[in-house]
Amino acid sequence: MKIAILPGDGIGTEIVAEALKALACLDLKFEMEEAKVGGAAYEAHGHPLPEHTLKLAKEADAVLFGAVGDWKYDKLDRPLRPEQAILGLRKNLELFANFRPAICYEELTHASSLKPEIVAGLDILIIRELTGDIYFGQPRGRRSSPDGAFKGADEAFDTMRYSRPEIERIAHVAFQAARKRNKKVLSVDKANVLETFQFWRDVVTEVHAQYPDVELEHMYVDNAAMQLVKQPKRLDVIVTGNMFGDILSDEAAMLTGSIGMLPSASLNAKNQGLYEPSHGSAPDIAGKGIANPLATILSAAMMLRFSLNQEGAAQRIEAAVKAVLAKGLRTADIYSAGTTKVGTKEMGDAVVAHL
Amino acid sequence: MKIAILPGDGIGTEIVAEALKALACLDLKFEMEEAKVGGAAYEAHGHPLPEHTLKLAKEADAVLFGAVGDWKYDKLDRPLRPEQAILGLRKNLELFANFRPAICYEELTHASSLKPEIVAGLDILIIRELTGDIYFGQPRGRRSSPDGAFKGADEAFDTMRYSRPEIERIAHVAFQAARKRNKKVLSVDKANVLETFQFWRDVVTEVHAQYPDVELEHMYVDNAAMQLVKQPKRLDVIVTGNMFGDILSDEAAMLTGSIGMLPSASLNAKNQGLYEPSHGSAPDIAGKGIANPLATILSAAMMLRFSLNQEGAAQRIEAAVKAVLAKGLRTADIYSAGTTKVGTKEMGDAVVAHL
Ligand SMILES: CC(C)[C@H](C(=O)O)[C@@H](O)C(=O)O
Ligand SMILES: CC(C)[C@H](C(=O)O)[C@@H](O)C(=O)O
Repeated sequence: MKIAILPGDGIGTEIVAEALKALACLDLKFEMEEAKVGGAAYEAHGHPLPEHTLKLAKEADAVLFGAVGDWKYDKLDRPLRPEQAILGLRKNLELFANFRPAICYEELTHASSLKPEIVAGLDILIIRELTGDIYFGQPRGRRSSPDGAFKGADEAFDTMRYSRPEIERIAHVAFQAARKRNKKVLSVDKANVLETFQFWRDVVTEVHAQYPDVELEHMYVDNAAMQLVKQPKRLDVIVTGNMFGDILSDEAAMLTGSIGMLPSASLNAKNQGLYEPSHGSAPDIAGKGIANPLATILSAAMMLRFSLNQEGAAQRIEAAVKAVLAKGLRTADIYSAGTTKVGTKEMGDAVVAHL
Repeated sequence: MKIAILPGDGIGTEIVAEALKALACLDLKFEMEEAKVGGAAYEAHGHPLPEHTLKLAKEADAVLFGAVGDWKYDKLDRPLRPEQAILGLRKNLELFANFRPAICYEELTHASSLKPEIVAGLDILIIRELTGDIYFGQPRGRRSSPDGAFKGADEAFDTMRYSRPEIERIAHVAFQAARKRNKKVLSVDKANVLETFQFWRDVVTEVHAQYPDVELEHMYVDNAAMQLVKQPKRLDVIVTGNMFGDILSDEAAMLTGSIGMLPSASLNAKNQGLYEPSHGSAPDIAGKGIANPLATILSAAMMLRFSLNQEGAAQRIEAAVKAVLAKGLRTADIYSAGTTKVGTKEMGDAVVAHL
């Protein structure tokens, strides 16, 4: 079991260190190698995703990823910015299936900006397509406008694209995931406006014929953004494209009020995967020892489940996280009166103690 | 003052009728003509936006629009579906500036799924560009994939595009609107991924130089979707493109819990405008006499303000709406214990009584 460790920038190093401590408690042997990525890699090697980092990730069974990004890289040319590393990893490893759970932990219900009765027990799984759509579609660029009312003016453009096999494979992933849950898939599109997403709707409907036991509903993305706010608990599995998935998965994560708790997995057809917390690199609190390591620890659990085939170990980690929450331990982001505020290391230590 | 009245489908006829009653109370002379649009126009004339409807709208100073759409038209070819009427009106009248306020009325704070302290007093103005972006960009369609990993497979595609003048004019609208409010503009983009929205960010920043008294912040759309849930009251004016604006304006509307109260305006460079409620045609409750007419009545107020230059009359209508709310009158969508439930007509009558 080969794991590439890519801590990245900001709080990345701190939170990944805690996940490694948890992994070390398990009776499992991993081959691990660490490399720089994002801004850290740019500073050391002049590129956010250096050749050797990409090679390491490709040869591993799984990548444990911290976070990338910092305001100080905002002025760099786009190909050199930290987030290009994550886009490059997704594309090069063909990590087309992104799993983003939005779970509201019982003890943390109060942390949500939504009323407790709206989010208590929330458990949504967003499955976002991750290697297609307008994120990667060619052509894209700047030019003199070739037509229309502003012909000749400067303009910029991008291409949204989805091919049948791309839609089919993510639809299969969604229906199969729904089978292990409440057997309901909501496919989110904008079929009333976009050719790409009318095609998406058509292909998802076709694939659905192979899953008669799963219920399929279609919804426009604007309506989905509303339903997430209005009655999120009605939702089970949501499948959507790369762009809409980016927006809706963050909206859903924030509904829980505890994005510091939410892991994510990005998988390819061989179950190779990249595992990272749903939150970002939080440069404002980096180095202070106060970041919440639980999303990263739970990402390690997803890694054990999906890429390393160690369901038992995954469950042990998840149980340990639940136990430290039940004990009342909280990092600053999820702290509330009556609980015990701890730092990154103490939180990691508590998980280790429970393992 | 020439007004084109386009009630459309579903509850459209009922709610527009109440707005017309309110307009009739004012000491103003309007020239009004009604025409069919959407599904109603398709049934009567075979097209959702018949020539004569479009001509009427073009020749009017303002269009008062109800809503379009019904499940029963979902199977029609896209060019014949009701929503094509609204896209056609936007494009043909060049209604590039969409104003979508998200206001949480004091009396209705409880209707929100968010905690009262998060939304009480909320007052956001979303300014959505409405005639560009991936909604109208050419080329678009289906084809055999010309390149990439799935070359030769069926695919669908769309083009996202923005030209400099399109971005400039909507940026001016946003900065000018902010001057009448809290002087803060949040421009939402996805500059870290899309060429179109890096250009958007660049041009908005340039235009900002002409508005040194207004504060400008940039935010990625995924983060904006989160901040709307987390701390919406921090936001003032949001300006964004057509696609992101579609999603964020609906999300913001739903935060208030009372989308039945929210009007919208879509303006062109000559201040011709289309005015419609932010909610849809609600075919499930059409004809039952229970729809909330207040969003449409408030849209008529926006029409008086923006296209007909009747600020006084606009304020009279807005005051009347506040008065009926203060009196405790509620349609079903905003009803809560201790208030008086009324139907569409009674609500309209109450507004009229206050005028
Ligand atoms: C950093 C950025 C390119 C990325 C995305 O848009 O996919 C991020 O927002 C995410 O969701 O992982
Ligand atoms: C009906 C549809 C085409 C339209 C849009 O996407 O713009 C609607 O959602 C809106 O926001 O007015």
